[in-house]
Amino acid sequence: MKKTVAVLGGTGNEGPGLALRWAKSGRYEVIIGSRQAEKAERVAAELNQKLGQNLLRGLTNEAAAQAADICVLTVPYSAQGPTLTGLRELLQGKILIDVTVPLQPPKVSHVHVPPGGSAGQEAQAILGEGVRVVSAFQNVGAAHLAEGDSHIDCDVLVCGDDKEAKAEAIALAEAAGMRGIDAGPLRNGVVVEGLTAVLIGINIRHKAKGAGIKITGI
Amino acid sequence: MKKTVAVLGGTGNEGPGLALRWAKSGRYEVIIGSRQAEKAERVAAELNQKLGQNLLRGLTNEAAAQAADICVLTVPYSAQGPTLTGLRELLQGKILIDVTVPLQPPKVSHVHVPPGGSAGQEAQAILGEGVRVVSAFQNVGAAHLAEGDSHIDCDVLVCGDDKEAKAEAIALAEAAGMRGIDAGPLRNGVVVEGLTAVLIGINIRHKAKGAGIKITGI
Repeated sequence: MKKTVAVLGGTGNEGPGLALRWAKSGRYEVIIGSRQAEKAERVAAELNQKLGQNLLRGLTNEAAAQAADICVLTVPYSAQGPTLTGLRELLQGKILIDVTVPLQPPKVSHVHVPPGGSAGQEAQAILGEGVRVVSAFQNVGAAHLAEGDSHIDCDVLVCGDDKEAKAEAIALAEAAGMRGIDAGPLRNGVVVEGLTAVLIGINIRHKAKGAGIKITGI
Repeated sequence: MKKTVAVLGGTGNEGPGLALRWAKSGRYEVIIGSRQAEKAERVAAELNQKLGQNLLRGLTNEAAAQAADICVLTVPYSAQGPTLTGLRELLQGKILIDVTVPLQPPKVSHVHVPPGGSAGQEAQAILGEGVRVVSAFQNVGAAHLAEGDSHIDCDVLVCGDDKEAKAEAIALAEAAGMRGIDAGPLRNGVVVEGLTAVLIGINIRHKAKGAGIKITGI
């Protein structure tokens, strides 16, 4: 049976592209979650139209989290804490893949190390040990994800303290057209999250839109 | 006139490979620095033998720093503070390229964020504003550097608060057979330094020796 993936806060920049790719892969049931069910339904309908098939559905974040085996959080840093606090009980026993980047506007090209060590560790601290938190997908540009079915020239570095949960994130990276690489424990997420700020700066200086990273030599 | 580059602590893993490549490029006068002059002279002689030309010389760190326009520090994290404190006066007015990675043995594949924000910022704090500190060259494996004259499939991410100093580091990366990329302010060095711990872990898991990174999409 296919696993169900819920993209919580899935109506923003990153969420729809990931959801589209996972649905298209045929390997997952995919739900778009949002604070407002209507918004989630609208984005799911738009993606279904792109796909020409009714593969995705839209639900509130709560209903999406409840229905899913694996939850993926794609919200701005300022919304991460409140969203996870609200979903804490519903997420127990599940895998949470945290895509949060702790950017500090307006200087979004400056690396900001959050008080909890990394956004992923802050998620783990909110959720407690009953949730297996993995940090991943921060470095892939929304523009690339939206391209739909092409392979993306960007690796997905996956940090976490649970091997099985990391393997799920690596499988999701592959289903989305990227190479997933185990990048060590959850605390290493500080580097992967911060790399997004570095890539934003590189985009600005090179007038590019989708700078990414690849691991060489393996 | 060629600029003079001193590789301070240049007898370890990273130093000789960088020094060899810079000397071979013909663009720089290169000095190997060490706490002991004899050790520096021996490594310089070994590199000259490899090159078949007398291009490098070995000096104490103090004499090397004094003679150089640009100093490159390649010492373990535990030696960074004491070395820079001792060279503080000699480095005033110069560029210091800090290659220090704040690894915390024995778990060298775990990212460690140092108290000063990054090793580069700690160097700047010790040296004061009279020294232009740039953070670079942390992600390239010693094995690749030792290969001599081949191009290396690894980018050099360069962090610093002074544009001219960053341009010198980017030129040095190119002279050593790599692409140098401006990665933002000195504080962003926390990501580039930490990436080395991530790459060490990837090397271990993939039974590889020289994992590196490339920026894509620019």
